[in-house]
Amino acid sequence: MSTNILRTSGGWWVVRGDRAVSVDTKAVTTAELIADRDAVREAALSADAGTPVADLVALSPVTTPCRVVAQMVNYRSHARDSGFTGDIPPAFFRKASGSVSGPCDAVVRPSHVEFLDYEIELGLVMGASLPVGTVVEERDLPAYVAGLVITDDVSARDVQLTKTQFYESKSYPTFTPTGPHLALLEPEDFAHLFDLRLRLSVNGELRQDRTLADMIVRPAQALTLLARFQTLDSGDLLLTGTPGGTALKAPPKPVEKIGALLPPAVKWKAFFKSQAKNPHYLHPGDVITATIATPDGRIDLGEQRTPVRTPVRTEASRT
Amino acid sequence: MSTNILRTSGGWWVVRGDRAVSVDTKAVTTAELIADRDAVREAALSADAGTPVADLVALSPVTTPCRVVAQMVNYRSHARDSGFTGDIPPAFFRKASGSVSGPCDAVVRPSHVEFLDYEIELGLVMGASLPVGTVVEERDLPAYVAGLVITDDVSARDVQLTKTQFYESKSYPTFTPTGPHLALLEPEDFAHLFDLRLRLSVNGELRQDRTLADMIVRPAQALTLLARFQTLDSGDLLLTGTPGGTALKAPPKPVEKIGALLPPAVKWKAFFKSQAKNPHYLHPGDVITATIATPDGRIDLGEQRTPVRTPVRTEASRT
Repeated sequence: MSTNILRTSGGWWVVRGDRAVSVDTKAVTTAELIADRDAVREAALSADAGTPVADLVALSPVTTPCRVVAQMVNYRSHARDSGFTGDIPPAFFRKASGSVSGPCDAVVRPSHVEFLDYEIELGLVMGASLPVGTVVEERDLPAYVAGLVITDDVSARDVQLTKTQFYESKSYPTFTPTGPHLALLEPEDFAHLFDLRLRLSVNGELRQDRTLADMIVRPAQALTLLARFQTLDSGDLLLTGTPGGTALKAPPKPVEKIGALLPPAVKWKAFFKSQAKNPHYLHPGDVITATIATPDGRIDLGEQRTPVRTPVRTEASRT
Repeated sequence: MSTNILRTSGGWWVVRGDRAVSVDTKAVTTAELIADRDAVREAALSADAGTPVADLVALSPVTTPCRVVAQMVNYRSHARDSGFTGDIPPAFFRKASGSVSGPCDAVVRPSHVEFLDYEIELGLVMGASLPVGTVVEERDLPAYVAGLVITDDVSARDVQLTKTQFYESKSYPTFTPTGPHLALLEPEDFAHLFDLRLRLSVNGELRQDRTLADMIVRPAQALTLLARFQTLDSGDLLLTGTPGGTALKAPPKPVEKIGALLPPAVKWKAFFKSQAKNPHYLHPGDVITATIATPDGRIDLGEQRTPVRTPVRTEASRT
């Protein structure tokens, strides 16, 4: 049975129903908390009645700086949305860990961004080092992955598509809301991974709703592919891709092929003109809610609730 | 006048002609060395005769982990090589800092990579924090940039072009040879930045040879654009793009436009078939040499000399 952890400005908590018990630990970083499993176990079993969860302000349970790596196009439904046909080579990109924000913090839309999109993703929180060259089998996952979190891979589509490299468009501050729960898993929980259901709504309207059964490259294979070129350490975060239902939809194929013949500036101008009529992009005042859980509640990463806003004046004048 | 620093397994050194004087410092990381300018100054002025540089084995003067960020297409000559016409939107990508290696270490070509390419780049080593929202003017550069290094942004072209995101193709271990010198600059040295000449040869044949005058987005503007979305700290590394002369050359425009209409797998198969005849990609046994200096030697980042090799058996069996 997984153990749900919350982080607040006061420290770490174990969630028990609608109350939370403080963890007696010196851990500051997520890696340190993961290493202090005795303290977590003690809080989980303590006789302390705890504090109402409703009284706590949750921060991201993943502390930064850490490595934040993400998988590109990793759900069949998102591949269809994005206009991919045939084989999709598995690919990774980085997000700056300065983009990580809390599960109730606002998502700030920079003043130069017009097409802001959401992407609910299951986040794997590493619990051990993954050296280059490691081969991870499904049965090895518990040795490398300590727990799971909800993440939203917020994306500035106008920046992403014109720059081709995803890095900037997904790295602005507040572009990776994370939490509330860090669900620390027991080895037997991993058998239930593919029952997890990802659901994201905007202003109460359901936009994304899929289980991990729709995933293309599963976590063990993803870690093997990542370890072909890079190391991860405890506390690092891997975002495993988003299912269909984002605001962005690829244009129909014949249009896209003609678009490929236009100079890039002309092509993108035409594309974003067409996108201006798409009502699904995020606007200031919108509220995004996101949940990830198994139907039986065995794994339940809580609810993320993030309003969208514009930069405050001092920020706006600097960006 | 800039001060050239070397790092060896024994610590830090100030280069004085063909000899080097050990720096009396507790610094382990590059950020710590940059903060200990008194110790550097003391070594630079000491009466110690020092050790012959030829007797030292230089490591990367940039220690890891650190942030390694790179600018995409940032020299006009490279933009032409890459088939860009018209405006190029400035873009950044990340390299894993596990790719950083020493200035004499071998570049290891992974067994699945066929088209290995070189990219000499001027590396800026940060000397202070760059918070999100910072605007850096040319005159502010000395407040943010502590020094310069030679870097080689080694690229697996077959991985890079098929995956579209550059991250993996440029992040394998040994794919960022760095050093030998970390040239710590005085404020007056920055006026000479655009006289720096980048030269890279393979087996003695000159392949890249340009000054910074060919650069598109200059360092102060690059830091301003980067600070739109992310923070840097002292010891972090920004690679500022490569000039023309890489092995990779874009196919002629009409071919590329027809290629845009083909399914991606067919397109890349055709492209790499044409590249197989290109003799400029790197092969095991090749030796890359790279220098960056002003004509008057005021700033001289030394010579990087990196052989190319295949993985050793134990690595090969794991990748």
